[in-house]
Amino acid sequence: MHTLTAGRGLLFGGDYNPEQWPEPVWAEDVELMRAAGVNLVTVGVFSWARIEPEPGARDFGWLDRVLGLLAEAGIAVDLATPTASPPPWLGHRNPGTLPVDESGHRLWYGARNQFCPSSPVYRERALALVTDLAERYAGHPALALWHVGNEYGQICHCDVSAEAFRAWLRERHGDLAGLNEAWGTTFWSQRYGDWAEVVPPRRAPYLVNPTQKLDWARFCSDALLAHYRAERDVLRARTPGVPVTTNFMGLFKPVDSWRWAPEEDLVSNDWYPDPADPLFPVRAALTHDLTRSLGGGRPWLLLEQAASAVNWRPHNVPKAAGQLRLESLQAVARGADGSCYFQWRASRFGAERFHSAMLPHAGPGTRLHAEVRAHGAELRRLAEVAGQPVPARVALVHDWPSWWAMEEAGRPSDRLGVPDQLLAYYRPLWERGVAVDLVPPSAGLSGYALTVVPNLYLVSDEDAEALTAYVRGGGVLVVGPFSGVADPNGHIRTGRFPAPLRDVLGASGEEWRPAPEDRPVRCAWADGTPFEARTWTELLRAEGAEPVAVFTEGELAGSPAVLRHRAGAGVAWYVATLPHHDALAELTGRALADAGVSGALPGPPPPAVEAVRRGPVLFLLNHGDREARVPLAEPAEDLLTGARVEGAVTLGARAVVALRP
Amino acid sequence: MHTLTAGRGLLFGGDYNPEQWPEPVWAEDVELMRAAGVNLVTVGVFSWARIEPEPGARDFGWLDRVLGLLAEAGIAVDLATPTASPPPWLGHRNPGTLPVDESGHRLWYGARNQFCPSSPVYRERALALVTDLAERYAGHPALALWHVGNEYGQICHCDVSAEAFRAWLRERHGDLAGLNEAWGTTFWSQRYGDWAEVVPPRRAPYLVNPTQKLDWARFCSDALLAHYRAERDVLRARTPGVPVTTNFMGLFKPVDSWRWAPEEDLVSNDWYPDPADPLFPVRAALTHDLTRSLGGGRPWLLLEQAASAVNWRPHNVPKAAGQLRLESLQAVARGADGSCYFQWRASRFGAERFHSAMLPHAGPGTRLHAEVRAHGAELRRLAEVAGQPVPARVALVHDWPSWWAMEEAGRPSDRLGVPDQLLAYYRPLWERGVAVDLVPPSAGLSGYALTVVPNLYLVSDEDAEALTAYVRGGGVLVVGPFSGVADPNGHIRTGRFPAPLRDVLGASGEEWRPAPEDRPVRCAWADGTPFEARTWTELLRAEGAEPVAVFTEGELAGSPAVLRHRAGAGVAWYVATLPHHDALAELTGRALADAGVSGALPGPPPPAVEAVRRGPVLFLLNHGDREARVPLAEPAEDLLTGARVEGAVTLGARAVVALRP
Amino acid sequence: MHTLTAGRGLLFGGDYNPEQWPEPVWAEDVELMRAAGVNLVTVGVFSWARIEPEPGARDFGWLDRVLGLLAEAGIAVDLATPTASPPPWLGHRNPGTLPVDESGHRLWYGARNQFCPSSPVYRERALALVTDLAERYAGHPALALWHVGNEYGQICHCDVSAEAFRAWLRERHGDLAGLNEAWGTTFWSQRYGDWAEVVPPRRAPYLVNPTQKLDWARFCSDALLAHYRAERDVLRARTPGVPVTTNFMGLFKPVDSWRWAPEEDLVSNDWYPDPADPLFPVRAALTHDLTRSLGGGRPWLLLEQAASAVNWRPHNVPKAAGQLRLESLQAVARGADGSCYFQWRASRFGAERFHSAMLPHAGPGTRLHAEVRAHGAELRRLAEVAGQPVPARVALVHDWPSWWAMEEAGRPSDRLGVPDQLLAYYRPLWERGVAVDLVPPSAGLSGYALTVVPNLYLVSDEDAEALTAYVRGGGVLVVGPFSGVADPNGHIRTGRFPAPLRDVLGASGEEWRPAPEDRPVRCAWADGTPFEARTWTELLRAEGAEPVAVFTEGELAGSPAVLRHRAGAGVAWYVATLPHHDALAELTGRALADAGVSGALPGPPPPAVEAVRRGPVLFLLNHGDREARVPLAEPAEDLLTGARVEGAVTLGARAVVALRP
Repeated sequence: MHTLTAGRGLLFGGDYNPEQWPEPVWAEDVELMRAAGVNLVTVGVFSWARIEPEPGARDFGWLDRVLGLLAEAGIAVDLATPTASPPPWLGHRNPGTLPVDESGHRLWYGARNQFCPSSPVYRERALALVTDLAERYAGHPALALWHVGNEYGQICHCDVSAEAFRAWLRERHGDLAGLNEAWGTTFWSQRYGDWAEVVPPRRAPYLVNPTQKLDWARFCSDALLAHYRAERDVLRARTPGVPVTTNFMGLFKPVDSWRWAPEEDLVSNDWYPDPADPLFPVRAALTHDLTRSLGGGRPWLLLEQAASAVNWRPHNVPKAAGQLRLESLQAVARGADGSCYFQWRASRFGAERFHSAMLPHAGPGTRLHAEVRAHGAELRRLAEVAGQPVPARVALVHDWPSWWAMEEAGRPSDRLGVPDQLLAYYRPLWERGVAVDLVPPSAGLSGYALTVVPNLYLVSDEDAEALTAYVRGGGVLVVGPFSGVADPNGHIRTGRFPAPLRDVLGASGEEWRPAPEDRPVRCAWADGTPFEARTWTELLRAEGAEPVAVFTEGELAGSPAVLRHRAGAGVAWYVATLPHHDALAELTGRALADAGVSGALPGPPPPAVEAVRRGPVLFLLNHGDREARVPLAEPAEDLLTGARVEGAVTLGARAVVALRP
Repeated sequence: MHTLTAGRGLLFGGDYNPEQWPEPVWAEDVELMRAAGVNLVTVGVFSWARIEPEPGARDFGWLDRVLGLLAEAGIAVDLATPTASPPPWLGHRNPGTLPVDESGHRLWYGARNQFCPSSPVYRERALALVTDLAERYAGHPALALWHVGNEYGQICHCDVSAEAFRAWLRERHGDLAGLNEAWGTTFWSQRYGDWAEVVPPRRAPYLVNPTQKLDWARFCSDALLAHYRAERDVLRARTPGVPVTTNFMGLFKPVDSWRWAPEEDLVSNDWYPDPADPLFPVRAALTHDLTRSLGGGRPWLLLEQAASAVNWRPHNVPKAAGQLRLESLQAVARGADGSCYFQWRASRFGAERFHSAMLPHAGPGTRLHAEVRAHGAELRRLAEVAGQPVPARVALVHDWPSWWAMEEAGRPSDRLGVPDQLLAYYRPLWERGVAVDLVPPSAGLSGYALTVVPNLYLVSDEDAEALTAYVRGGGVLVVGPFSGVADPNGHIRTGRFPAPLRDVLGASGEEWRPAPEDRPVRCAWADGTPFEARTWTELLRAEGAEPVAVFTEGELAGSPAVLRHRAGAGVAWYVATLPHHDALAELTGRALADAGVSGALPGPPPPAVEAVRRGPVLFLLNHGDREARVPLAEPAEDLLTGARVEGAVTLGARAVVALRP
Repeated sequence: MHTLTAGRGLLFGGDYNPEQWPEPVWAEDVELMRAAGVNLVTVGVFSWARIEPEPGARDFGWLDRVLGLLAEAGIAVDLATPTASPPPWLGHRNPGTLPVDESGHRLWYGARNQFCPSSPVYRERALALVTDLAERYAGHPALALWHVGNEYGQICHCDVSAEAFRAWLRERHGDLAGLNEAWGTTFWSQRYGDWAEVVPPRRAPYLVNPTQKLDWARFCSDALLAHYRAERDVLRARTPGVPVTTNFMGLFKPVDSWRWAPEEDLVSNDWYPDPADPLFPVRAALTHDLTRSLGGGRPWLLLEQAASAVNWRPHNVPKAAGQLRLESLQAVARGADGSCYFQWRASRFGAERFHSAMLPHAGPGTRLHAEVRAHGAELRRLAEVAGQPVPARVALVHDWPSWWAMEEAGRPSDRLGVPDQLLAYYRPLWERGVAVDLVPPSAGLSGYALTVVPNLYLVSDEDAEALTAYVRGGGVLVVGPFSGVADPNGHIRTGRFPAPLRDVLGASGEEWRPAPEDRPVRCAWADGTPFEARTWTELLRAEGAEPVAVFTEGELAGSPAVLRHRAGAGVAWYVATLPHHDALAELTGRALADAGVSGALPGPPPPAVEAVRRGPVLFLLNHGDREARVPLAEPAEDLLTGARVEGAVTLGARAVVALRP
């Protein structure tokens, strides 16, 4: 990242698709970009058909001219391999490159992303193009970053994919005996006697084998990753100094980003919150923390966001005035070294013609473009923030395979979902201004005082042991319900649950009991203070732990709802229901106290105000519609305005300050 | 139409499917028809398999006998080409004649309409049959009208259709460069390098190219139209004096009726409102006005309606007592020269066995059949109405391609829909008894004092110029939101919107801002009177226009919501939100005042009473459940009863009078 | 059944799938089964792939050992033919054995049930396996019952199925003329000219021919039945003394159980109520009465139920404490000679890993397993109940073809459904403790004082005559709305409805009038007492019957809603709407009085208490959460506890007593 921000400061820009416009517009674009403080643009994401209008042809002239203009203007280029969207000729000449859904429907060109990740023809064509692209632009002064593909997520159920799936399964399970054991094929007479029988989870009369689906999810992520790696290797070999990234989509289910991120030089993310969602600022913070954590805490890039409304929801509410900068600065506060948009100039045609852009259809003389320019200017004032870390003492565990396995069909309740639980446990931390890293379950946790596991349905023996050792060594652990249930093949761990965490939690259970949803689950803290939860209960008994809260109604009345266990030098909490936010906030407060962790401010910030420290800078962001007053411990300078503040700072609606002591 | 009504008066009858009944029933049918005043029946719509039981065979004997019986009884026949529903043998022997949906599923026989509009085999078979039918019945005394096909609307995505689509596209766009330009294929790498690559919009991984879909909608309508024309030409060549029609379905999205109607000798329509919909009388009036307008104001035929309930909704509420005549007379009042039903005798079997009919399963001794007979009798008293016009000074603009383009996926909000907007703007006019013509955007508007454009998303330069000239020449124009957005290829017109109407409206905007839907959009008229709107706002500025209403809340507070602009000799209104009905009624009243247009009565009729003048006759129709009193300007005779009324007329629930001064 | 219960008493056990567990677990299983009082287990339901790991192979060794262990322990085996779930190799090698849905999608292996019922390859493979299984275990001491297939219900639309459908149709309709007549193919030009044209009801452009669908439903049930019979014949030939059953699923639409049950030696059922459904105890009683009635009143087997929660609903609420025994005893009270579970030991993997079991994941030391053991023990105390009948004087008519035909698309209202009507009419009988048999319409009714026909849309002439004769001979008949509408081909019976029952009902109608659903239908009894109904009304007139209730609002005000007709020695009631429960209870009371039928107790039991007599034993089951007191006519002994009760018995929440005088 340093090579990117060095001399440039924070990065600001967007996707630039000059091929959609006549050449005379390009000069205007570059001029307007400069005026807006743009210093990085992503070029070429959807240019395959333009570069290779017929098989084997190459037309780079236009791209030479575009990159030339940008280089002249000092605007760096994030050059995309345009392999996310093959031209119609590929699907027409090689129908096998078109993906097939689980019902056997072929998906056609006319949109985008119509490729089978396992197609050798697609792969060969894509790599040939990437090779030529890399060779042509190696050493080009504009080239600052490689952008491989786009929002990877394609899935295909065709016979070629089936063959690739089988190869992947051989690698994982060794032989058919291993596969049959892992998939539990004695259930429902599913034993495979020949590798050729094994297929992706296709449309079937009833619920498909959950381990088949779990392995399929793993394979699909890995198949895309293999393609990413192949492109990256081509690029690295030809432009060794240029960093390589691909744009993630946050908590995007099909891609196990923990496996992908180490293969990147720089982690980047696309983020499109719904302004109509009242929790989107919290969701945004969680997503940014995930992105930063994927890169091991290093600065990252917000590579795509909307300047205002998107176009793909049924009803697309725009951003409020001031929200563009607020959201962008939130990313910066949480570790981004750049804030970019899809896209620079709003398209006149195509499926995204109503996606907002930095330069709207109505042109530069608009309120929206004025906000863009103002924000471009103020980002320059934050240059010193580039490269600074966001240190955290709290870890939030998230695991893709566990997510896949937990949300598989046929579970006790589909009202219990992984992203919801992540957000529920993250929200009270965010409200207190406590910095959080996301971690995979296999992470070393020694650097964290508190580790929160909202849900870890699937856990390996090693990871369960590591969590246990973490507590015994002094860590504080909070574990949410329906965790520790399954092994890495998704097989239930028998015995009282959560079997591999039973000792450290000092408690065990025998029944998951989804609660009727027409009324709340009533509980009380040990002192009798009542609280409410929903959807889920468990029949537990304490085995050393202290029941800090109990259910107070129905059959489970008196039975533990929350337990706290001193184990070794640490403390382990177990939460056996889905407490309403207030109760979860109370619980989080107690666990933070156990861990001795506090937030960015001496006390909790006012409602809707986000407080986060990046390096020496304290960011305060008011996501609310009302003014908020935040007391300050020491005098500081607001980098955004240069103003000196002391005692307290008052933030208007959607205001931000970046305070350096 | 004159040839049809001359000597017959208003037409009354229904679909007659004698092939469903043993021959002895036919005589009873004809006897009952005579008793009910039936003078026109549609025969043969679903008789292909009966006439051609195996490929190439012809069995006309039964039809000879049916037509003979009807001719003897003096009942005219609307003879159908039975090509809407091919026999099973066609699909079985030629699977390529079966349609294929966008996912590639073949649609089988067993229902109806299972043909590919582009299939040459289907076309050849259909035209051979139509030729023989026309030759056999040319000159038959019963033959009064040709009914081509039935409710055209079939769509097919097969390879043959793809080839036909390509031919159509060549015609429209010339060469591939033209196609690529029109479709904006630089977006998402969709450039076509060979015509063979071009396919219908089939199932794809994500949003399909909107211009591809727009052209597909145009092609699908045209492909059916070509088939209609081919049949019509066969008929015209053999029975030159016999008029030809096909039954439309009102605001039916797949068929651009403005392009079809000129190809007909007579416009006819099928109309099946839901009695459970409180706005259905308004919807009916709008539909009838559309049908009349399609025929250039000439009398039209209500060719299908239900005597009571239909069978295809989940819950099919029947018509209330008196509603059969009320609905029929509404059509007559709005220009119909005939009111017919699907169908004469209720089927015992088949998918429509529960569709009500003129002669119910329970037989002639029923309340429903008594209503049918009474209505047949009273229609004779309205004979003088036949051929009379319904003059209107207000034009309501509706355009199929604009509808297709506006409701394409990926727009700012799918809560804004074309039929809803049409109805919203039509309703206050209907409530005031103001006569309205529907017009396509390319219509000459000089005859209209007021032109209302609820939505015209897609507009050509010529049409925009014509609207501008209309205002400058003294017309009054009302334009609803999200109009003037795109050109005929569906490309956004850049610059402040609505770009091509900006001058005439004296205002322009820069953002379409869908509003959160959990609360109303608050506005106020210039005098401070508040009103509410919903769903949609725009960020506008006046450029000469007077803001007659403003938004009063949130970021747009103070910004114009409704503007009025004196331009040349006329006035142009722009409405930038979706006002609730009361506010839209207020606005409509002001625009009518600008235009100097008033309704059929000196003042507005009482609630639920519809007032419309056809020729010299004033129809008053009470759609409500309560008695209503309408003051009259002059003494008159009620044609339906012969009664003389003076001063005022009192209408019971669902009552109608037809007053001739 | 006697051979099964002789020496064993009531049967208790579950599905046992040892192939899912390593062999050492088996001994533990058997030990735990003995401790829990298990005396019957179903083995082998999903063992095809285990027994025949590759085509033609046989591995019976493991099964020998399992059956040996069970025989030693004195646990009887219900041995399954494992043909419900073929191994992957069958579908892989013979794709034609895989079923195809109505859209043409092939359904793959990976779940279960992936076979085409008409596939000759599947049939041949299945019968070969069944033959070998029967030969191997003929005479085995553990073998007590054969379990053919599993939950039959597969449907396939492939070309082979089409051929089989045609053969079935030839059998039913003779020739094509008969088919065309029966299907009413003159409607919509559907005439078939060649048998090869006839196909299953596949995806089509619009509503498919309803008689085609009715015959298809008949064929699908019969095709499965033929397969069942073929397996049964193999078994009977080899193990003549061993009874044969297959597990029904209660009111499962695809299988016409009246046609199946006579082919079984013993009727058994699977029953999975939703504990979140407040009416499930009533639904359960209805289902148990159906199962008993299918076997002509002989004892039956509850072969599958959940010990607590299932896994296949979106949100799976577990059973409350005590509910396991309550539900089991309810089945026993209603004629079951055994109560079994799916399954013995909870699976660790596969799609049903979260389906509860007799032995949970958490092991034997759990509350749930303790309930299982306690219940196993108490069942032994009811041994004398085995074989006892549940005599009933009320018949409730239910017919599968009528159900299929009534719920076909295109009917007046899809808010009128057969299972709902069955339950609505059953519920007041259940609440009064009145025993009910379910009967097909063709049943001899002479043994019943009251016959209730909630809906009999489709009725043959013979059945209508039998119902008429039943009343004239002294029976009391209650007929619900929309009955007597169609003949066995689903053709509407013309004339005033219900045409074939008009005489016996002394009333007739001319319009079915679905009512607006936003408000109730208001009615009143003859004495003016008002009541409410919903959804449905009919326009009727009395023709000898007494209108005991009338509609009181709208057009039908004053028109009959309920009629009562003395016909010969009996009484016939007709109900022309859907009365709310209270009104239907009132009506039921009157009809019971007409019939002189009373319940198991002198008066109605307290709310939520079910009262039913099996042989000499009076079962009282409290389904409520509150204590209930039931007065007793005579002193008795509670077989479950041995306690003597006199005067009255008090039942706690979910308590049961089994009282023998």
